[in-house]
Amino acid sequence: MNSTWGNNIRLSVFGESHGSGIGVVIDGLKPGIKLDTDEIMFHMSRRAPGKDKYSTPRPEADAFEILSGIFDGYTTGAPLCCFIKNTNTKSGDYSKMKTIMRPGHSDYPAHIKFGGFNDVRGGGHFSGRLTAPIVFAGSVCRQYLKACGIDIYAHISQINGIYDTPFDTVSPCDYSYLYNKSFCTIDDGIAEKMKEAIDGARMDTNSVGGGVECIICGVNAGIGNPIFHSVESVMSSLLFSIPAVKAVEFGAGVDVAAMTGEQCNDCYYYDNDTVRCETNNNGGITGGITNGMPIHFRTTFKPTPTISKPQKTIDVSSKTETELISGGRHDPCVVQRAVVVVESVAAIGTLECMGGLT
Amino acid sequence: MNSTWGNNIRLSVFGESHGSGIGVVIDGLKPGIKLDTDEIMFHMSRRAPGKDKYSTPRPEADAFEILSGIFDGYTTGAPLCCFIKNTNTKSGDYSKMKTIMRPGHSDYPAHIKFGGFNDVRGGGHFSGRLTAPIVFAGSVCRQYLKACGIDIYAHISQINGIYDTPFDTVSPCDYSYLYNKSFCTIDDGIAEKMKEAIDGARMDTNSVGGGVECIICGVNAGIGNPIFHSVESVMSSLLFSIPAVKAVEFGAGVDVAAMTGEQCNDCYYYDNDTVRCETNNNGGITGGITNGMPIHFRTTFKPTPTISKPQKTIDVSSKTETELISGGRHDPCVVQRAVVVVESVAAIGTLECMGGLT
Amino acid sequence: MNSTWGNNIRLSVFGESHGSGIGVVIDGLKPGIKLDTDEIMFHMSRRAPGKDKYSTPRPEADAFEILSGIFDGYTTGAPLCCFIKNTNTKSGDYSKMKTIMRPGHSDYPAHIKFGGFNDVRGGGHFSGRLTAPIVFAGSVCRQYLKACGIDIYAHISQINGIYDTPFDTVSPCDYSYLYNKSFCTIDDGIAEKMKEAIDGARMDTNSVGGGVECIICGVNAGIGNPIFHSVESVMSSLLFSIPAVKAVEFGAGVDVAAMTGEQCNDCYYYDNDTVRCETNNNGGITGGITNGMPIHFRTTFKPTPTISKPQKTIDVSSKTETELISGGRHDPCVVQRAVVVVESVAAIGTLECMGGLT
Amino acid sequence: MNSTWGNNIRLSVFGESHGSGIGVVIDGLKPGIKLDTDEIMFHMSRRAPGKDKYSTPRPEADAFEILSGIFDGYTTGAPLCCFIKNTNTKSGDYSKMKTIMRPGHSDYPAHIKFGGFNDVRGGGHFSGRLTAPIVFAGSVCRQYLKACGIDIYAHISQINGIYDTPFDTVSPCDYSYLYNKSFCTIDDGIAEKMKEAIDGARMDTNSVGGGVECIICGVNAGIGNPIFHSVESVMSSLLFSIPAVKAVEFGAGVDVAAMTGEQCNDCYYYDNDTVRCETNNNGGITGGITNGMPIHFRTTFKPTPTISKPQKTIDVSSKTETELISGGRHDPCVVQRAVVVVESVAAIGTLECMGGLT
Repeated sequence: MNSTWGNNIRLSVFGESHGSGIGVVIDGLKPGIKLDTDEIMFHMSRRAPGKDKYSTPRPEADAFEILSGIFDGYTTGAPLCCFIKNTNTKSGDYSKMKTIMRPGHSDYPAHIKFGGFNDVRGGGHFSGRLTAPIVFAGSVCRQYLKACGIDIYAHISQINGIYDTPFDTVSPCDYSYLYNKSFCTIDDGIAEKMKEAIDGARMDTNSVGGGVECIICGVNAGIGNPIFHSVESVMSSLLFSIPAVKAVEFGAGVDVAAMTGEQCNDCYYYDNDTVRCETNNNGGITGGITNGMPIHFRTTFKPTPTISKPQKTIDVSSKTETELISGGRHDPCVVQRAVVVVESVAAIGTLECMGGLT
Repeated sequence: MNSTWGNNIRLSVFGESHGSGIGVVIDGLKPGIKLDTDEIMFHMSRRAPGKDKYSTPRPEADAFEILSGIFDGYTTGAPLCCFIKNTNTKSGDYSKMKTIMRPGHSDYPAHIKFGGFNDVRGGGHFSGRLTAPIVFAGSVCRQYLKACGIDIYAHISQINGIYDTPFDTVSPCDYSYLYNKSFCTIDDGIAEKMKEAIDGARMDTNSVGGGVECIICGVNAGIGNPIFHSVESVMSSLLFSIPAVKAVEFGAGVDVAAMTGEQCNDCYYYDNDTVRCETNNNGGITGGITNGMPIHFRTTFKPTPTISKPQKTIDVSSKTETELISGGRHDPCVVQRAVVVVESVAAIGTLECMGGLT
Repeated sequence: MNSTWGNNIRLSVFGESHGSGIGVVIDGLKPGIKLDTDEIMFHMSRRAPGKDKYSTPRPEADAFEILSGIFDGYTTGAPLCCFIKNTNTKSGDYSKMKTIMRPGHSDYPAHIKFGGFNDVRGGGHFSGRLTAPIVFAGSVCRQYLKACGIDIYAHISQINGIYDTPFDTVSPCDYSYLYNKSFCTIDDGIAEKMKEAIDGARMDTNSVGGGVECIICGVNAGIGNPIFHSVESVMSSLLFSIPAVKAVEFGAGVDVAAMTGEQCNDCYYYDNDTVRCETNNNGGITGGITNGMPIHFRTTFKPTPTISKPQKTIDVSSKTETELISGGRHDPCVVQRAVVVVESVAAIGTLECMGGLT
Repeated sequence: MNSTWGNNIRLSVFGESHGSGIGVVIDGLKPGIKLDTDEIMFHMSRRAPGKDKYSTPRPEADAFEILSGIFDGYTTGAPLCCFIKNTNTKSGDYSKMKTIMRPGHSDYPAHIKFGGFNDVRGGGHFSGRLTAPIVFAGSVCRQYLKACGIDIYAHISQINGIYDTPFDTVSPCDYSYLYNKSFCTIDDGIAEKMKEAIDGARMDTNSVGGGVECIICGVNAGIGNPIFHSVESVMSSLLFSIPAVKAVEFGAGVDVAAMTGEQCNDCYYYDNDTVRCETNNNGGITGGITNGMPIHFRTTFKPTPTISKPQKTIDVSSKTETELISGGRHDPCVVQRAVVVVESVAAIGTLECMGGLT
């Protein structure tokens, strides 16, 4: 397995859903940033479960402890380790989890890869809970970016076919009001409709998917690489690290297929001395490198695979087919909690592309 | 800049569109594979330009030379370097290229990143021509995969809103007949309509975008990683390395947003002793790891940014706005040539995920 | 800063001498090894300080907690995080540490590199205490190697010009008895002389250096790489990661300079079907790759830079010269405690070279 | 195999002694340095064989071609590929090389590692000839360093027990006169004695070893890392990549073992506003980071394993013991040609530690 990432900023994520806890080591941070732990806690709480009926009822404080890398309140340049103790781990009997493979989950691939030695309780190292240390890491990175005038915003762009107003990606206003919404949409009326859809799925013991749209504002032109380490490559490798993400689109995304070159090209102009584009179909990136426009992308999340409906599946011990009815707590939709996860990996990816802000 | 990629298979791509040539060093290949250079040449020629009016008229043989890493016809385990000499480089006066920034191209981002020192002739290291060594590398990787029973197929899934029949991604048949099509669709009638669309754009001095769908058949369950090095992460980082790619989707892709969990989950069953899924909405990957079903993804390509219509843009030397009319040869659509590029990065990514086949 | 290491086995070390604690994440371990935590504790205690007058009197239990990566006693393949809480951290007033640069220490280089933000208490992340998580990691790796029949032995080869009997590096016997010696020499009489030298330095408020010799037995031929990732390159990069190491020699080491080719070449013969060498001047490695003979190297440690004698140095705040008399606890010699550290990095390096034992 | 190296500067070395040629891709170079190819050629010629009777009589021009990465004479920031064609490759019948394992060479380890598929002609990818692209890469890096006021000097410190005057490592003068010596010692009289020793070995169909001492002048304090990526770790990993190196020592090296802390510590003082040390026993590095003093190290080379005396060895095809008398051209001593190789890896390592000079 390989749970480390990055060249300039290096993350090493560890832990399991029902073990002692989860955490991350962030290596490569520059010294001298005064860490605002309240702000980190704020972003962590945006992801935390158990707040309402649209998320899993498992209450998990996600209280983190910073074990290293700060001194007198400032980052030292040494690795910063964050640990989040697991406090609410009802694992009980997990013998069935070892043999009955839940459809849509990592169970079967992991069973094969790890020869049955993987921690199956709550998904183990595969659990969506591992996004908590990622939000921690992203929240640290955000503070480095903030110091450079870079802001990151995201919202629920879609739940099960219900769409929020999209971002203005050419001249975005200040979307920081979104941070304070517990259900993060631009349009409050749409939020209610989305919640109804989620609640409907919940009552039907089913689940729904959706999408998250994100913009990164304030990144200078000239960041990134052609080919392998394009901004899109770096970002997508992180975005596809978020459980349940099945599509990543930059700028106009899948819609570029139906455009002509004339429609898709973003024409440059001077806004006083600043180079800008009239449109942002390329999502702020051409040739793998930022062009100074907001970086813009969308991710699509599949519906939570854990549902309480009967499903056909297999028992790998007896090599027979069986029916599974999942009990226990779960999210009827993960998208609303994923908004801050998307923002966080956006922050990590941006800091990586900027060389850790040397 | 960073033009190296991979942990188990390491690629180092070099060269410029109008310099001496382009190439790649592939490091980490296991010894003992008899390289079929005819097959490599065959795949290279599928990408090569100048074959018909749907592609750039620049005739470029793409004759490659293997400078190292083979001995008596077999790979030795030492790095394999491939060099492709540039033979047809009409660069002429490039002073304007240094200052007039073509919309939708890397010109402006590269100008900023490299402080004006980048080779601007034909896009330099950013040229789509750099996909030739990538096809070489992918064609080598394919031969390693082939020896394990793994086959890779791709086709043009869409040109400007005209869609080909999609792959059967549950029980795919042998699609190898696609390799021999110069315009690679499953449905020949659709191909004609797509060609008309491309030709229409060409005559209108415009360009069109499209999509490529790909399946990788024969990969065992248990390949990949959760989180950062998920199969999706590895593949997408390569797919977004292909110039003009703006979206990557696995399995049902953007359509999972509108599915319920019950619809999206791929239920397991035993086909004799083999574990299979009834559907393949997850594209052969759950939890970042293969589940034994075909790996399935789609990429969306933007229309070629080079068009001969007048476009508003900037002159960075005078810091003024100007109008640009690109002359010279270019592709009205890159999708048909990109099919083999997609297959090639699929091969590279698969070999990487499989640890280089130790 | 970069405190991560490895391609096949990835270590991320964190923590500071006087912070919350220290630890390591080990990523890339294969699943399915039953971890013997008593054996790990045993090796940790061999490094632990405070056992006798030859080491620092700081008593530090080095009790470790495994936060992740094991399940039902077996490694799962997920990252293994070990945390060692700091229990005895008398930091007191450290304002002088920020400005008075101790000769021979990291103080001045770190002050420049981190702009004064580094944790100066007890050396912070530079402390020799960071070798505790490295011994943990090495002890885990040893259990993987042990399962392949690989054993690692080390002893104090020299203290301040007093030499122990060297290892037999051609046909080494079982040196595991060394593990149980608190002062690890082959010759007990020599140990007494070494201890006298250390005690003499201690009473003189001075310190002494020395050397550690190590052999790795049971590694098959064919492990390693030519050029950059030679076994010597991998091992030396780890050995020079141990604080105070100033020289690394393989096989006959510095003595090869005075040999002829005829003397230095290790002639092959068959011992039944096994290929062996008559001598081992190459330390088990030719062309960067193991030849099946024991891997053999020596490291030289400088005397502990912390001494209680008055030393001339600088105050970086006032930019003046000053005199420093270090108080506090310190080791008059680190070599005896470093024996297990050398063994541990030998284990890490071997497992890395073996690809993590796929 | 893994023939790539580096994080900030990435090298990918390729080629075989008797194949088409050898080369290197250097990735990560900053744009905008005017490359002095005459100076590169000059350093390449210092390594080149065939100049006198002390080296192999194989005349090899080592004419290099830069295939990419420069434009109008300046580095572009894109990967720089250098290719050196092999012009004088008398390989003839190599069937014996595949089965008779030369003692002290890579033959046997490589045979096992590559399952007999490695190119055995002239050592293939293991040949000392691969140091030519390394000298190229180092010569490029030197030009980046030179622009920052950093100079690198090396000399033959020892041949078979005959020692040259060592460098002044505290206040080194300008040693650039050494570059113009074909046999690179400070003391010309010693050079004659060394040559006699080499010639004696040559006439006795034997070979001799020796050492190279190197200093890097002008590196600021604060470069490097504690633990894994210490300057010593980075440098040693490169130095042990040079064929035949068996020991690496920094500063006082193996002699620190016999020093006391008081003797070994390098006391700081102010030379006007500049921090300096009175001695340089730590070789310019404490805590893995530069302290502003010259970086200083020594490498020890074993005698060339190729000798024309009869040697006992094995035939792996028949699994029998045999006698080998190597014919063909070879160096009776490699040390004099290795001086510029040591300087070159010193340059590569320094540029890497400096982050590629962002």
